[in-house]
Amino acid sequence: MPMPVLDFWFDFASTYSYLSALRIEQLAAGSGIAVRWRPFLLGPIFASQGWSTSPFNLYEVKGRYMVRDIGRIAAQRGIGFRLPAPFPQHSVLAARVALGIEDMAQRGAFSRAVMVAQFADGLAINEPGTMQVCLERAGLVPGAHLQRAQSDAVKAGLRTQTEAARALGIFGAPTTVTPDGEMFWGDDRLEAAIAWACSPGGRASV
Amino acid sequence: MPMPVLDFWFDFASTYSYLSALRIEQLAAGSGIAVRWRPFLLGPIFASQGWSTSPFNLYEVKGRYMVRDIGRIAAQRGIGFRLPAPFPQHSVLAARVALGIEDMAQRGAFSRAVMVAQFADGLAINEPGTMQVCLERAGLVPGAHLQRAQSDAVKAGLRTQTEAARALGIFGAPTTVTPDGEMFWGDDRLEAAIAWACSPGGRASV
Repeated sequence: MPMPVLDFWFDFASTYSYLSALRIEQLAAGSGIAVRWRPFLLGPIFASQGWSTSPFNLYEVKGRYMVRDIGRIAAQRGIGFRLPAPFPQHSVLAARVALGIEDMAQRGAFSRAVMVAQFADGLAINEPGTMQVCLERAGLVPGAHLQRAQSDAVKAGLRTQTEAARALGIFGAPTTVTPDGEMFWGDDRLEAAIAWACSPGGRASV
Repeated sequence: MPMPVLDFWFDFASTYSYLSALRIEQLAAGSGIAVRWRPFLLGPIFASQGWSTSPFNLYEVKGRYMVRDIGRIAAQRGIGFRLPAPFPQHSVLAARVALGIEDMAQRGAFSRAVMVAQFADGLAINEPGTMQVCLERAGLVPGAHLQRAQSDAVKAGLRTQTEAARALGIFGAPTTVTPDGEMFWGDDRLEAAIAWACSPGGRASV
């Protein structure tokens, strides 16, 4: 029987996506589940909800709470956290580089490297130099990947990816989708998503 | 040493408040912590964020997700759930009756009865008849409590309560606040709030 696959929809600029990106692979593997890393852009989805930026900027008290909430969880998990400035970062370049990496283990390693660079090390993820560092940290050769990220195929692929997220009814990140199409929003639903995928019905491919 | 007290800020019309209302007392008691039930109105706070109704109505896909999310959790916990119509219900009357009950154990029992009546039994919580049923289910004599709910003191008390919530930076419900002022938003942070209140610093009264 093939391994069931969780779709992990995330935006590189999303703070709660950072929390999940660092643990989903290990959690899923422990349950015999594979992860498909699916970067997309929240910006266009927020825009169609009438938001010009992150709700954490639009609603200041919610933004302050988010920073505290992530800080507590990061401390508990022993990972770093600082809010990037500006927040949110432009995530298009990182998303394109990630989409251009076809091997899922490599894409996962690169994605984690970007998250750590941004939320722990304070690097700007819209800079090619940061992408180069992250590709290297993921054990990849930067040149070809940076070039591939600028190809029309990858650019169109990211637009398709974002439209697919919208079509699924995704409105925030991270969102984890089980093989039978059940949707779980938020880092705090990651365990539930994995439990669902492990249930008899949840493993079925759609 | 007196028992540490968790402030449980909730709106009777809030679906995630329903989830927490049914379990907070037992969870807290297991850790030697008391609960102060603090009903308030989300409406004025949403209005100052520019929202005319619940975000689950303003953002339709988010609303659909919420119903599914609560349904999954309710099934797992063995409690009923149906979305009231209309949603959200008018929670002013229930909040006033609750605030008029000074004994915390009684206020808790009444609050749980209202939540079950609304989200499991499908009763309209803005009707005095429903309040009567809930007061009886909580072992209270309805007449005096319904009258007290209409007093100027209780009406003013609810306005004060809502302003106090806003002043704390509360933007959603449920929100649980520990004795040292740490804030936890959402039913999915209830365990974290209790753990915090049990930590050496978290038990300190402010």
